[in-house]
Amino acid sequence: MTKTNPEESPTSKWISYRPEIKILDCTLRDGGLMNAHRFDDEVVRAVYSACVDAGIDYMEIGYINSRRIFSPADHGSWKYCQEDDIRRIVGENDTPLKLSVMADAEKSDYRSDILPCDQSVLDMVRVATYIHQIPSALDMVKDANDKGYETTVNLMAISTVNDRELDEALEMLSKSEVGTIYIVDSFGSLYSEQTHFLLEKYLRYAQSSGKRVGMHAHNNQQLAFANTIEAIIKGADVLDATMAGLGRGAGNCPLERLVGFLHNPKFHLRPILQCVQQYIEPLREELMWGFDTPYMLTGLLNQHPRAAMEFNASNDRGDIVKFLDLISEEE
Amino acid sequence: MTKTNPEESPTSKWISYRPEIKILDCTLRDGGLMNAHRFDDEVVRAVYSACVDAGIDYMEIGYINSRRIFSPADHGSWKYCQEDDIRRIVGENDTPLKLSVMADAEKSDYRSDILPCDQSVLDMVRVATYIHQIPSALDMVKDANDKGYETTVNLMAISTVNDRELDEALEMLSKSEVGTIYIVDSFGSLYSEQTHFLLEKYLRYAQSSGKRVGMHAHNNQQLAFANTIEAIIKGADVLDATMAGLGRGAGNCPLERLVGFLHNPKFHLRPILQCVQQYIEPLREELMWGFDTPYMLTGLLNQHPRAAMEFNASNDRGDIVKFLDLISEEE
Repeated sequence: MTKTNPEESPTSKWISYRPEIKILDCTLRDGGLMNAHRFDDEVVRAVYSACVDAGIDYMEIGYINSRRIFSPADHGSWKYCQEDDIRRIVGENDTPLKLSVMADAEKSDYRSDILPCDQSVLDMVRVATYIHQIPSALDMVKDANDKGYETTVNLMAISTVNDRELDEALEMLSKSEVGTIYIVDSFGSLYSEQTHFLLEKYLRYAQSSGKRVGMHAHNNQQLAFANTIEAIIKGADVLDATMAGLGRGAGNCPLERLVGFLHNPKFHLRPILQCVQQYIEPLREELMWGFDTPYMLTGLLNQHPRAAMEFNASNDRGDIVKFLDLISEEE
Repeated sequence: MTKTNPEESPTSKWISYRPEIKILDCTLRDGGLMNAHRFDDEVVRAVYSACVDAGIDYMEIGYINSRRIFSPADHGSWKYCQEDDIRRIVGENDTPLKLSVMADAEKSDYRSDILPCDQSVLDMVRVATYIHQIPSALDMVKDANDKGYETTVNLMAISTVNDRELDEALEMLSKSEVGTIYIVDSFGSLYSEQTHFLLEKYLRYAQSSGKRVGMHAHNNQQLAFANTIEAIIKGADVLDATMAGLGRGAGNCPLERLVGFLHNPKFHLRPILQCVQQYIEPLREELMWGFDTPYMLTGLLNQHPRAAMEFNASNDRGDIVKFLDLISEEE
């Protein structure tokens, strides 16, 4: 693993590791999309403790989105991540684990809701953006950077972005204050060669401007873990994963598989398996995330998993031929 | 996909296809390891029909193993694949689908049980062998080749074979009558770089002797589909897959995902999804195949999935921390 220079003997890299690789756990943030961010404090505390014990680098606790746009009547605390809520779980977070929140472009009151970093237990603000929102995202990055936070830009639905626009976006991002630029395969649609192509492109812009590249994969085609490995091989240094893959639709790269793969001895598998067994798997019946054939079909067709999520929530769940016919018609 | 020459533009290969790529469905053969090859005729007939309708190249119906070694009291028909049983399902098999059986080295009465090809509806004999059984396997290949069959050698547990012995085996195989040499990741333990390494090695021997390379992946780390794609990229031309991934333990590369990925218009997804929905998924509760964390742990440790299969059949199923502690102790 972790080969970046093809000149080196490959075997020399299968059992060593690249110390600069960081893991970001986004179990609660991405998983919250399956329950409107209504997690019991006990679960949030368990995920936090497991991340600390497992040596994870960053934990994303939720969104810091607008209470005007997303009604508090319809969402739990972790859609807003107010300082008091976070501190109720982590206290002063006197641990090496850094805490992150995600703000959606055009859906966050970031100027008022994000405190100066020295008044917050948060360490990083990640901005989620579609390609057409890049100017808004850059304003959010500047705001967070000025307040003292580490920052990332997570460019979503990358499998639908055309090459010409992506180059322009990466040019803009490389000149911004952002620390890490993320590939986000929202539709779980990428194959390894496409992942390589994107990594090489991102790195051309990122390396010359001293930024890191991150990978956020979805499991619609059961390739989230595989594509995360491909991103590592090509030089991504920040990797998103979630416990038991908990996340929207087919879910994410499973944290336990990523930690199993990486050889940095600072990471520990057992606390993650404990949390998965005791707190995450018991949520599966209600939250219903994870790979299945309708997600494979949306991934294959490079579509948002929305149609598969709706189908799986209907009485037709399991009738995969009907779903195939349905999305083939829509094409 | 299907890139073999890195000089070419990668995008030119993402939507085209390599017509020489063949798919072998081994749903009944590998899946039979989960029910002692006791499938109802209705299921066998449904898999056969789906393979024909989907444009699959080969279907493996079961093993042709010894009735002395494997008692017929404990196994269904598809452990032995006698001609009358096969013909009860496929008649004269007047279709483009070729039929295959697998014979285990040292566990098959191949001289007597395998008829001359012109007296059989079978087209191919695949020999499954461990590295130390290669001389026996070569005798079986010669027998099948002399009888008129296409042949493969499936070298199992490849992740445990040392490099020096593998070179010797490949040298012997390249000089034999065998048509296709298979990489078999029995433990589901390979990552993409190891898959590339093995493919390059196999191809060095195979190409100079006019043989094909095949890939048979297991899903212990949820990388069966990903590794099959990597094998395609590196030049494997014969790919094993099973419907819904049905196969031993964590199962195999799912046929529906492979057919979705390949762009050859001769392959059709819908008949496979129909068979999966109507005949394969209903077996899941009884046969209990498919990815879960204990398989991930055996894959990670490059161990046979036996311990995970036993654990999943016990009352401890679900206690993944206990299983972690168990196999860590055994190390």
